[in-house]
Amino acid sequence: MKIKVINPNTTPEMTKDIYTSAHCFSRPDTEILCVNPERGPVTIEGFYDEYMAIPGLIEELLKTEKEAKVDAYVVACFGDPGLYALRELTEKPVIGIAESAMMLATFVAGKFSIVTIMPRIRMMLEELIQRVGVGHRLASIRTPNLTVLDFMRDFEGCKKILIQEAKDTIEKDYAEAIILGCAGMAGFATEVQKEVNVPVFDAVASAVKIAEALVDMGVKTSKVLSYKFPEKKEFKGMPSLLQP
Amino acid sequence: MKIKVINPNTTPEMTKDIYTSAHCFSRPDTEILCVNPERGPVTIEGFYDEYMAIPGLIEELLKTEKEAKVDAYVVACFGDPGLYALRELTEKPVIGIAESAMMLATFVAGKFSIVTIMPRIRMMLEELIQRVGVGHRLASIRTPNLTVLDFMRDFEGCKKILIQEAKDTIEKDYAEAIILGCAGMAGFATEVQKEVNVPVFDAVASAVKIAEALVDMGVKTSKVLSYKFPEKKEFKGMPSLLQP
Amino acid sequence: MKIKVINPNTTPEMTKDIYTSAHCFSRPDTEILCVNPERGPVTIEGFYDEYMAIPGLIEELLKTEKEAKVDAYVVACFGDPGLYALRELTEKPVIGIAESAMMLATFVAGKFSIVTIMPRIRMMLEELIQRVGVGHRLASIRTPNLTVLDFMRDFEGCKKILIQEAKDTIEKDYAEAIILGCAGMAGFATEVQKEVNVPVFDAVASAVKIAEALVDMGVKTSKVLSYKFPEKKEFKGMPSLLQP
Amino acid sequence: MKIKVINPNTTPEMTKDIYTSAHCFSRPDTEILCVNPERGPVTIEGFYDEYMAIPGLIEELLKTEKEAKVDAYVVACFGDPGLYALRELTEKPVIGIAESAMMLATFVAGKFSIVTIMPRIRMMLEELIQRVGVGHRLASIRTPNLTVLDFMRDFEGCKKILIQEAKDTIEKDYAEAIILGCAGMAGFATEVQKEVNVPVFDAVASAVKIAEALVDMGVKTSKVLSYKFPEKKEFKGMPSLLQP
Amino acid sequence: MKIKVINPNTTPEMTKDIYTSAHCFSRPDTEILCVNPERGPVTIEGFYDEYMAIPGLIEELLKTEKEAKVDAYVVACFGDPGLYALRELTEKPVIGIAESAMMLATFVAGKFSIVTIMPRIRMMLEELIQRVGVGHRLASIRTPNLTVLDFMRDFEGCKKILIQEAKDTIEKDYAEAIILGCAGMAGFATEVQKEVNVPVFDAVASAVKIAEALVDMGVKTSKVLSYKFPEKKEFKGMPSLLQP
Amino acid sequence: MKIKVINPNTTPEMTKDIYTSAHCFSRPDTEILCVNPERGPVTIEGFYDEYMAIPGLIEELLKTEKEAKVDAYVVACFGDPGLYALRELTEKPVIGIAESAMMLATFVAGKFSIVTIMPRIRMMLEELIQRVGVGHRLASIRTPNLTVLDFMRDFEGCKKILIQEAKDTIEKDYAEAIILGCAGMAGFATEVQKEVNVPVFDAVASAVKIAEALVDMGVKTSKVLSYKFPEKKEFKGMPSLLQP
Repeated sequence: MKIKVINPNTTPEMTKDIYTSAHCFSRPDTEILCVNPERGPVTIEGFYDEYMAIPGLIEELLKTEKEAKVDAYVVACFGDPGLYALRELTEKPVIGIAESAMMLATFVAGKFSIVTIMPRIRMMLEELIQRVGVGHRLASIRTPNLTVLDFMRDFEGCKKILIQEAKDTIEKDYAEAIILGCAGMAGFATEVQKEVNVPVFDAVASAVKIAEALVDMGVKTSKVLSYKFPEKKEFKGMPSLLQP
Repeated sequence: MKIKVINPNTTPEMTKDIYTSAHCFSRPDTEILCVNPERGPVTIEGFYDEYMAIPGLIEELLKTEKEAKVDAYVVACFGDPGLYALRELTEKPVIGIAESAMMLATFVAGKFSIVTIMPRIRMMLEELIQRVGVGHRLASIRTPNLTVLDFMRDFEGCKKILIQEAKDTIEKDYAEAIILGCAGMAGFATEVQKEVNVPVFDAVASAVKIAEALVDMGVKTSKVLSYKFPEKKEFKGMPSLLQP
Repeated sequence: MKIKVINPNTTPEMTKDIYTSAHCFSRPDTEILCVNPERGPVTIEGFYDEYMAIPGLIEELLKTEKEAKVDAYVVACFGDPGLYALRELTEKPVIGIAESAMMLATFVAGKFSIVTIMPRIRMMLEELIQRVGVGHRLASIRTPNLTVLDFMRDFEGCKKILIQEAKDTIEKDYAEAIILGCAGMAGFATEVQKEVNVPVFDAVASAVKIAEALVDMGVKTSKVLSYKFPEKKEFKGMPSLLQP
Repeated sequence: MKIKVINPNTTPEMTKDIYTSAHCFSRPDTEILCVNPERGPVTIEGFYDEYMAIPGLIEELLKTEKEAKVDAYVVACFGDPGLYALRELTEKPVIGIAESAMMLATFVAGKFSIVTIMPRIRMMLEELIQRVGVGHRLASIRTPNLTVLDFMRDFEGCKKILIQEAKDTIEKDYAEAIILGCAGMAGFATEVQKEVNVPVFDAVASAVKIAEALVDMGVKTSKVLSYKFPEKKEFKGMPSLLQP
Repeated sequence: MKIKVINPNTTPEMTKDIYTSAHCFSRPDTEILCVNPERGPVTIEGFYDEYMAIPGLIEELLKTEKEAKVDAYVVACFGDPGLYALRELTEKPVIGIAESAMMLATFVAGKFSIVTIMPRIRMMLEELIQRVGVGHRLASIRTPNLTVLDFMRDFEGCKKILIQEAKDTIEKDYAEAIILGCAGMAGFATEVQKEVNVPVFDAVASAVKIAEALVDMGVKTSKVLSYKFPEKKEFKGMPSLLQP
Repeated sequence: MKIKVINPNTTPEMTKDIYTSAHCFSRPDTEILCVNPERGPVTIEGFYDEYMAIPGLIEELLKTEKEAKVDAYVVACFGDPGLYALRELTEKPVIGIAESAMMLATFVAGKFSIVTIMPRIRMMLEELIQRVGVGHRLASIRTPNLTVLDFMRDFEGCKKILIQEAKDTIEKDYAEAIILGCAGMAGFATEVQKEVNVPVFDAVASAVKIAEALVDMGVKTSKVLSYKFPEKKEFKGMPSLLQP
């Protein structure tokens, strides 16, 4: 099967790390295509960034719908941006990395903590957790004030910080699992896992596994109500690439 | 004071009706600027439409931030699209019409019903209601399968349908107030109000009144956490107009 | 328009401060009538006080319904006492200061904190927050153990304490807005606002603005179900003034 | 032990029925005192009635606190009026009939329905159910549009209606227990029970049993925070009987 | 009346203490039968222990159903194990000690804390609290890392720890009542009560009082849906004693 | 990898169907072991049945832990019986079929309905849905009054009923996906899928896919708190096979 993983920001180094993570945890017969749009923010660290990334994300999905044959899509940003819109545009499963990691964590742990980037995204994550429905399983959100690009620039420094936050949340917040809450942390799960005695979830890997599961089961996105194809209409002044 | 009302779709007839509604309910010393972006979908009837409208919406706000002097913004689409992003981009209050109407309804009625357009937006509204926090005050969501443009094309026909739905929900769902859940319904509230004995809320008017209230109080959007100005960063391949 | 603000306790100095706050934030063409009942507790600092204040409050409203012409009522106590009963007695909007401040705060901040008086009212506020529906937006309730009359007696001392609590809750509880949770704090918002970088809400002002909004929109209290006029019946041994 | 049951309305016939119900289900060594205030509404059928009944209710409790020796209080109105205020005024348990019936029903049934009086009290009951916490156990609220005095005037007619509603809710709403939601229905439980195959709860009886339980256990109302004795203060123009 | 209290573990010393507690708080004309199964874990300190105790518990109930005449059952373990299954097997009320203590606490206190054994049962209690519906009344769960058998072995040591935890939770968590959250703590409530100024609930006593209440009221377990008698079927390789 | 699927009832024909379903949707390199205990109820249709099945289920797991080498366990009953206890007994993931199907459904549909067996299990499913956290995504629970063995006895008859219920819930309840809520329905998903235009979830298949996902990711059950290995202790009169 083919899964297209879209990094919605425009930082190719990060796309590469996401590819490694996705590929590393995928099944041998799964082909991972990993791309990022040509236009949009270099990182996503707030609501504005998120919405600015969505057109590029949609473009990437529509391009694939028209040209290539893939079986599912993964959106590789921990805010799960634009998910519902993408689901309208295709019958293939579209999977978010945050929703996937949170749901998988509940199968092996009572409560989980999310270790993520800067404090400003706390509200974005809290609303996401409510939408997913796992608020009763959340131990805490830890925001050690890292930026997304820090992970590209200082692997060792970030690793230390993530390990420290993970240890703290296990000890102080009754956390029983750790979710690394940023696609830029792809590759860190293995490192953090070595240092702590609870399961550590790579969110990109989580979404790839959910995508594989749904494709294997043959289920597609329901098109009868919430995720119907968009109504036909005119889009003024917009690149045709952005239109289904 | 000056309030800029942005219709996030690209249908000027609708912008005109929204202006009428906003102007009609505003205070004499409030100046209403009412615009729509040049690019984007002609109507918003789903998640894809919503996200496609947000760049134009942001452009309109940023243009104003740089050029004109306004005191608050109103986003005139009942899905409250892009609200959090806009709040990051300015210190001035940014108000959604759905959140405004729902909150104002709770001051004069036990339960309210939303009469809106087609069934596919039900999930969008349910998630919005949860975010606002008034789920316990909702009697029902009524979706008489109208499109946004129907309101432009057939005033009398739509009026009849809205009145019938309003009467039905009062009688069968214990509704004590009606919210007209689409910016395209601007102008219908007065008509429906004549036929039913419960308060009927025009959502655009509701948001204008909330905007006036906040401006009068001198409060601005909090910039310490969730709505901080966006992080400085590169946006590849994007019009400079879209960047704060 | 005319708004009658009723301070439900019997301390005229406080009524005066409430008037100043209401008047100061009202529109030029809004006339504020501000009164307190002749009978009832001098302050409201618990459930018993609250219920003992309600008959006087109802008397004040009914007196106005029979004699004067006003457009809306504001109940100026942060417990929002007797609101539902008052709504049964009139078609005019009846607005609570707590519900108003909490709702307005959500338009400009992710999470808000309430800085109020003594710890014993914590449960009263928690139940009120649930009724309003904004529990997911509450950062914390701060109870610095002040009494209502402290605000009349020691402006400077109280000001210092409120500023300190506001600063603490911003720093420690992720608060992004402050609500001053007592009608006795009318007048302090401006002072606290000078010292902190988040919006500070005067609750009396908030309710006046909501009242103005609803009157401008022409909506009235729904009389079809929850807030129908009281059933006709005998009230034994009660002053006729208390009967609708 | 002695339990004082206070009917908060001023209809002595109803007080008599409440006494019969309380006495009939109490233990042989429990003495039931059953009274109603001299002043207040003859029935409670809305928020205004409720608040107008509370001063008389408080008077009755305070009179007893000063004169007689009782072990617990029961407030015999299904809106549980003034409960928190009464708890502030005494160390003895103060028990509501609605909260008692709802909690006891959960021990013997998956879901329960409340059969009560007129539709207008629906919101009052919904808020009460949320405060008690048993919303997930509620099958439905049935409001056959009876007034409280109907139960005094037409026993047979009311009996038929209650039985019909009970049967309907078992069959259509998955109800597994019935709560008769009005103190005026004291005496009807036995009759309804004969006709339906699910447990039927008399609310007055439920509260008497909870009161007996708490007195036997020797627990008293906690006075450290929410239910502390009222703060000492002046109450202007109020009968001394109303002051603790 | 006769109440059978079943200690679901196999430690007779604990059964004795449970009996003392049940007997001590029961009415003079209530006969307490207190037993434990012959097979099963010596204590219940986790999910596995709980499920392993349920067959013995069911055996004890069925033995009684066939032989002796009792009026109600109490399950004396704070996890309320197997309650729903037992309710299917008999028409007599089956009462859990955790649900009883939590509900009774809400009648006399704003918020309560549970002082229990080891941290691992935290999730078990949190899910139980959600099922009962009193999450909004919980101040905290305190887990001082005691085992169930500690209470048999070191009364004085445990007493000190429980008193310390109770004092801490009153001071730091706004607790207004204490529930001793383990049947092994039967007998400690009186001791803790002497040292703290809030009501302390013995959970076994709480359940006995609820059982007495329901029996006095003549209500039985509803057999129309959730708690119908089990479907007739074959149970392979299981002792006939375990089959209804 | 090897996944052991345990049918917790003792009907080998059903075990065979479960095997077929598990095998059919598993990856080529996944080996499915499918067994049922030798003792326990022939079907699970209520709480008593559920608890009676758990010892056999535990025995099956412990036998495997001691003898064979598997990578994960699936419990194939839609009540997800004994899951938490099993998680205490092993480090390998233990997956329930109900939780798996509900979570996977949320990735491709706004709301899902569960079509299951008889009405009496409604409460069991409602509590399960709350524990999983997806109550806001539930359209309805449909209980066409089938028994588990009906699926073994009358394939065509059951198929018709399931298809009719699925069509009804799509049309009337806004369902966008169907979950077949009984392990006995293994094999029916494909048939129902042919007749309806929304995704249909086989619950056994769902759990196998989640198990594969977690094994591929290398995560194990967290052993630090809720799912620690059971405390060492004596189990009186119990087969050693049942002890870890």
